[in-house]
Amino acid sequence: MTKTGVRVDRAAGAAHAVVWLEREPVNSMTLEFWRALADALTALENDATVHGVIFASGLRRSVFTAGNDIAELYAPKTTWKRYREFWLTQTTFLSRLLSTRLATVCAIRGACPAGGCVVALCCDYRLQTTSGSLGLNEVALGIAVPQYWAELFLYRCIDRVKGESLLQRGVLVRPLEAQSLGLIDEVVGEGALMSAAASAMERYLKLPSSARATTKRTIRSHFSASWAAYAEEEAKGGWKMLNEPHIVKALGGVLMKLSGGKAKL
Amino acid sequence: MTKTGVRVDRAAGAAHAVVWLEREPVNSMTLEFWRALADALTALENDATVHGVIFASGLRRSVFTAGNDIAELYAPKTTWKRYREFWLTQTTFLSRLLSTRLATVCAIRGACPAGGCVVALCCDYRLQTTSGSLGLNEVALGIAVPQYWAELFLYRCIDRVKGESLLQRGVLVRPLEAQSLGLIDEVVGEGALMSAAASAMERYLKLPSSARATTKRTIRSHFSASWAAYAEEEAKGGWKMLNEPHIVKALGGVLMKLSGGKAKL
Amino acid sequence: MTKTGVRVDRAAGAAHAVVWLEREPVNSMTLEFWRALADALTALENDATVHGVIFASGLRRSVFTAGNDIAELYAPKTTWKRYREFWLTQTTFLSRLLSTRLATVCAIRGACPAGGCVVALCCDYRLQTTSGSLGLNEVALGIAVPQYWAELFLYRCIDRVKGESLLQRGVLVRPLEAQSLGLIDEVVGEGALMSAAASAMERYLKLPSSARATTKRTIRSHFSASWAAYAEEEAKGGWKMLNEPHIVKALGGVLMKLSGGKAKL
Repeated sequence: MTKTGVRVDRAAGAAHAVVWLEREPVNSMTLEFWRALADALTALENDATVHGVIFASGLRRSVFTAGNDIAELYAPKTTWKRYREFWLTQTTFLSRLLSTRLATVCAIRGACPAGGCVVALCCDYRLQTTSGSLGLNEVALGIAVPQYWAELFLYRCIDRVKGESLLQRGVLVRPLEAQSLGLIDEVVGEGALMSAAASAMERYLKLPSSARATTKRTIRSHFSASWAAYAEEEAKGGWKMLNEPHIVKALGGVLMKLSGGKAKL
Repeated sequence: MTKTGVRVDRAAGAAHAVVWLEREPVNSMTLEFWRALADALTALENDATVHGVIFASGLRRSVFTAGNDIAELYAPKTTWKRYREFWLTQTTFLSRLLSTRLATVCAIRGACPAGGCVVALCCDYRLQTTSGSLGLNEVALGIAVPQYWAELFLYRCIDRVKGESLLQRGVLVRPLEAQSLGLIDEVVGEGALMSAAASAMERYLKLPSSARATTKRTIRSHFSASWAAYAEEEAKGGWKMLNEPHIVKALGGVLMKLSGGKAKL
Repeated sequence: MTKTGVRVDRAAGAAHAVVWLEREPVNSMTLEFWRALADALTALENDATVHGVIFASGLRRSVFTAGNDIAELYAPKTTWKRYREFWLTQTTFLSRLLSTRLATVCAIRGACPAGGCVVALCCDYRLQTTSGSLGLNEVALGIAVPQYWAELFLYRCIDRVKGESLLQRGVLVRPLEAQSLGLIDEVVGEGALMSAAASAMERYLKLPSSARATTKRTIRSHFSASWAAYAEEEAKGGWKMLNEPHIVKALGGVLMKLSGGKAKL
């Protein structure tokens, strides 16, 4: 396990790398974790011999990531300065990932709620193991779904009405249902996950990389730019919401539950 | 039956109300009817103990509503002043319904063309009885589909190409086809309609209402605001169209047919 | 065969015409060919007795069109002046076709890549023979998909994620897969193509033409106008791309392959 929880792995001569998320126990996403993901993406983009990246979980348990670390959202435990930095770092990474020149494949082992789901939706291709879950479950935690997360989710969902219902009710869906909604491209057994991800990557990498990357930018750069441009304003609105008493109370409850009743709030 | 044709019913202690549409014989939607619907929505929104609303038809026959009253669209029988008021009242109600904080369920018994279809599309969840129909059939009557009605229909339709074809040909679809297009969430037997609607409502109401309502506003407020902002201009264009001789003739024919040849035009 | 490769055929008394594309051997689309298509559309629109148009291939082999003539894209064989004229003529035709008052049916016999696919996507209804292919395969040729071609393709594709993947990988799909994606409305045997196209046309023509055309304009004029407005800027960007050494090399390779090694580059 690395210090940052993010490890980049590249086979000799391979045109793509694997970014392993391995911050035990559940890859909860802190400021430092998002920063490490952003640094990994920058390093790969700056290497002209790299044309693709696979994201995967290296955790012991079957979890891609549990999403944002609740401690980053619980106002009494953070500051406006840190929350702003957290939100901008995360949003910059996600909006860049959406339109990166690299072919992007997300190999999802197990649970993939909230922030992890957004990482997956920013990729070109998503595989998930048969026993897992996917979605934006913010409402079930008592908080609203961030605007561009909701829009990206609905954009990628075949059935917008069903998608709106899932968002409003904070529901996570099983991989096969996610596949039927167009949110997951391929459902595979756990043992076949990484080889299937590599096969998917090969299908992208055999094309002329410049034409492929330009087409991807054509399709996604408008959304990506709007998202990035809204980050600062969204951070302000988010901080205001996170300081509302009923939200503080709700997130305090989540923290207490996650800690098995041992959190000091 | 109420004077306005709109009756609000709320079980003791219930977190939601039922708005019954019961203007015999077919709930044809006049200025006064839309105004009564708007008043009902406002009253429910202003009551902090209400979190949801189910719309249902209390008619004797199996009709949700027949849509706008043709007399409101037939230029020789109305005035610019009344038509403008009619269009603004209707559009304000619909655009507010789309993004209301209340969870909204539409329980559709039987036929649901035109204006009734738009009411349904503005809700969060739609159930329809097995024998019914749904769609925007304006073209079949000789008039164009209003812009935001068409956009909302296509927005909520899984297959945009199919949706465009239905609109251009003024076709109503059966409930099961509407379900396959994503326009209807659940098709049920007539006897089970209201209990299934209540169950759907429960699935929304068990979530934290503030997070749910904020997420809904996030998803829909942009569309809702554009729609409301366009109402005045749309009323002007609509009035111009309704005064074109071939439209007057076409709607006169519809009125005559509806009256069994007894209308005085 | 006509000089321009475009022949307009209209049965006596018919409310619609058939535009035959018959530039042997594969209807490769030159400046002159797009101009002839545009002229045919204008002539039909100017005839108040015409309400619909079917596009079909009159080639000997089973090809709708092979798309843009590579010679128009290969910088060493053309000029900025001609390329600009080519791009504006093509884009003006396509954006007008998208929102024309005429009901439009595309009867696709066989292969339908790139430019031919965009012609089809601009129509109201698409039929394709069982053995054929459809899509935007630019990336496979080493060039990027033009912005509005990509947007139109994704707009009409039920599954946006799948659509983005097809575009990025330059994949053509079989007619039945195109149908499942919503890109094709009907797959028919080759012998039944023109009669099925005529039946589809009848379903549109039986509606009041003014209401139908206004509704179509309501649905599509925003996209159509943005597309047309972007043509000049897109031509500039396209010419710049087509002069990049690796693109010149890639298209030179395509030309050489198409000529069986006999092209003089």
